[in-house]
Amino acid sequence: MTSKKTVNISYTGKAQELIRSVQAEPGQRLKIINKKEKWELEGYLLPKNEFTSDNILLVKLDNGYNIGIEVTSDLELEKIEGQITLERFPRRLPSQKKGLPEISLLGTGGTIASRIDYVTGGVVMALDPEEIFFALPELFSEISFRNVKSLFKLGSEDIWYKQWQLIAKHVTEELNSGVNGVVVMHGTDAMHYSSSALSFMLGDIPGPVAMAGGQRSSDRGSFDGALNLISASRVAAKADLAEVVVVMHATPDDQSCYIHRGTKVRKMHTSRRDAFKSIDIPPLGEIDYEGNIKWNRIERRHRKKSVSVDPKTDFEPKIALVKAYPGSDPEILDWFIDRGKKGVIIEGTGLGHVPSFPPEDEKERSWLPVIKRATEEGLFIGLTSQTLYGRTHPYVYRALRFARLSGAVHLEDMLPETAYVKLGWVLGNYDNEKEVKKIMLTNLAGEITEKSRFDSFI
Amino acid sequence: MTSKKTVNISYTGKAQELIRSVQAEPGQRLKIINKKEKWELEGYLLPKNEFTSDNILLVKLDNGYNIGIEVTSDLELEKIEGQITLERFPRRLPSQKKGLPEISLLGTGGTIASRIDYVTGGVVMALDPEEIFFALPELFSEISFRNVKSLFKLGSEDIWYKQWQLIAKHVTEELNSGVNGVVVMHGTDAMHYSSSALSFMLGDIPGPVAMAGGQRSSDRGSFDGALNLISASRVAAKADLAEVVVVMHATPDDQSCYIHRGTKVRKMHTSRRDAFKSIDIPPLGEIDYEGNIKWNRIERRHRKKSVSVDPKTDFEPKIALVKAYPGSDPEILDWFIDRGKKGVIIEGTGLGHVPSFPPEDEKERSWLPVIKRATEEGLFIGLTSQTLYGRTHPYVYRALRFARLSGAVHLEDMLPETAYVKLGWVLGNYDNEKEVKKIMLTNLAGEITEKSRFDSFI
Repeated sequence: MTSKKTVNISYTGKAQELIRSVQAEPGQRLKIINKKEKWELEGYLLPKNEFTSDNILLVKLDNGYNIGIEVTSDLELEKIEGQITLERFPRRLPSQKKGLPEISLLGTGGTIASRIDYVTGGVVMALDPEEIFFALPELFSEISFRNVKSLFKLGSEDIWYKQWQLIAKHVTEELNSGVNGVVVMHGTDAMHYSSSALSFMLGDIPGPVAMAGGQRSSDRGSFDGALNLISASRVAAKADLAEVVVVMHATPDDQSCYIHRGTKVRKMHTSRRDAFKSIDIPPLGEIDYEGNIKWNRIERRHRKKSVSVDPKTDFEPKIALVKAYPGSDPEILDWFIDRGKKGVIIEGTGLGHVPSFPPEDEKERSWLPVIKRATEEGLFIGLTSQTLYGRTHPYVYRALRFARLSGAVHLEDMLPETAYVKLGWVLGNYDNEKEVKKIMLTNLAGEITEKSRFDSFI
Repeated sequence: MTSKKTVNISYTGKAQELIRSVQAEPGQRLKIINKKEKWELEGYLLPKNEFTSDNILLVKLDNGYNIGIEVTSDLELEKIEGQITLERFPRRLPSQKKGLPEISLLGTGGTIASRIDYVTGGVVMALDPEEIFFALPELFSEISFRNVKSLFKLGSEDIWYKQWQLIAKHVTEELNSGVNGVVVMHGTDAMHYSSSALSFMLGDIPGPVAMAGGQRSSDRGSFDGALNLISASRVAAKADLAEVVVVMHATPDDQSCYIHRGTKVRKMHTSRRDAFKSIDIPPLGEIDYEGNIKWNRIERRHRKKSVSVDPKTDFEPKIALVKAYPGSDPEILDWFIDRGKKGVIIEGTGLGHVPSFPPEDEKERSWLPVIKRATEEGLFIGLTSQTLYGRTHPYVYRALRFARLSGAVHLEDMLPETAYVKLGWVLGNYDNEKEVKKIMLTNLAGEITEKSRFDSFI
């Protein structure tokens, strides 16, 4: 899957016609005008890349963002003064010093791969992990890279279980080949789904699997994705840790990154650098820009050279995550049954409630009979909370009653997203109903804590 | 609707038989044993209330929680030493001092109504707002209550648009009768859905509508619901404010409450007293236990005696809120179309994305064609973010492109829950498609801010 293919950087079709009409080349500064929609903007024309469809112009704005603009008959171009140089990096890693801690790096796509140009200041089509590493030469003096591979290039929300399986396979190969750790570069939006999946699939590992991405870029010569990547590489190379973690900015500035447990982390902001937060537990640790790690007082799995990774990657895709809320239509569960789903995680309210006792004449709003129907059909129905923080059903008797009533299972303090991913993994690897329930309620990778901490809330 | 009916406190059926078998009366301390399920617990038998079904025993645990226990053939009782006195409060409000600021209080159910026994230390069936007020005599020296009504008794997740309409009608009556403000007592789990609904339905109001609930009780003589209720009453009576707000604990202790804007608040923890958080903006203000209010630097609507409330309460119930995530089944939108939904709010990832460009051989995972189909069918499709914090699509061109592609609308920094409620309200009151879109993107009650604040994140 390593992407060594040639990228076609020539525009075609309508985009090509329009560009030719002003005799522009990639790198040229342009004014782009849409008279009908009454907007205009300026930026540098970028080369087409493998994701650009035929009628899209790729443009770099002055704020640093690359955007795609659809070519319609209302679009006009105007050549204006300004030109940037488009360079491409060589494709081979340089030879490295001996005796450095060794890691491998896997690329999967996402912002971090397309925005690294801010680090160098130049405009590059940074499509491969190699290129990113050429942009961060400082790392090469402290870490040695055994393998740098691009597995695929997908936005994080488009990555699902087949991709998780592929990542798990490659991580396994690398770890079993003896590297100290592995870095997985990943889009940020849905990174916490993938970090959960890898946590369950990989099981016991000898060293860290550190995921990192670029949350955003800026026009201030931002260090965003770069600090995350450097920090993740250092965690993979040196940290006394044997878990899947997410390494992302701790604060809006470039002082340090948090090391979040893969099953207890969530993207909590659309755009801030420090968007990732550990939920209900503190981050495992914090790594500053010089690479010093401060660990928090929370148990973690330590490095153990002797472990050989034996992943369990089967996954049942017929699952769903659904929100219950005032006025929600409970028959959605019937639809899930019809679609052949094997299990559903409900994001309930408060302690893990669903609309249950509406007024007599609005009975069809109660989820209880439908949940009962679903569990009787053999579906696993798990309850989490849309509050995100806190634990469902702290009082076992109340929960017992509800469970007896409907067959649903309250999933302690598991995050809804983590519960969804775990469910697919559990259903993929176990088929006895009782065992599924037992394992859903067993802490495997830090996703369930025994006691809630008072110090870990907003 | 004021509940003056007599409550039947006698157990019947299987519960009655079991209680008679040990000759116990409500108030008696019991050991309850389930040998088959291997658990036992101790607590005081409570009188049956109108929510207790025939085969449920109501028991007060030593930690202060009241629980319902299903009577099955495995259940055994044992009378043990201990007895509590069951008092009932008188049913009429006392006469009040003249010249005090006047408010009205509406009850809708929830924990606050059933747990007030912690304030007095006695065990009461506090089913009506009157009774709560007898438990808080200190309030009567500073505030006069024109009306205290129980509209209905529902868990907050069971309250929907018909109940919102009823609350709005009563709030309107009270405000137009000249009270300074209105307190709405409400269960906490879904209170933010109701506070959004009232914000849109009521429109311009002369003074505050302050919602409050009891997040939890404890065995420490907790002041939880009481402080919230006292603070909400003071806000309603005296605050220079003309908005729907949620008044709940600011911290885990009983020092103060936050005054949250009704459209920008969310329950963020399953069980903490300070579970409610303003999202993306600071709370409007903070009221301490002595009633002093400190306002934050954020615009708010000020009291204006002259305003007469003219609510718009129509509501289109055929709406849905759905989460998009890795592996989510986009055909759920087709099901919504089949169900006759008129609009759907999607809780997307990151800046408001949905799985869009999966690998070629997994094309069925892309939401884009289905969103396009839905918008072509005339459904309004709005995009929010499951990060909860932050704004969708900060770069208008990228969003334009997506919108052109699919017809979906990014809803700025509106919370998913607020957007869902607003959608039902907008579709209920406007039918022109263009107008619906325009109003969804117009700030009506603080639900959309123009510029995100840097100081309002976790």
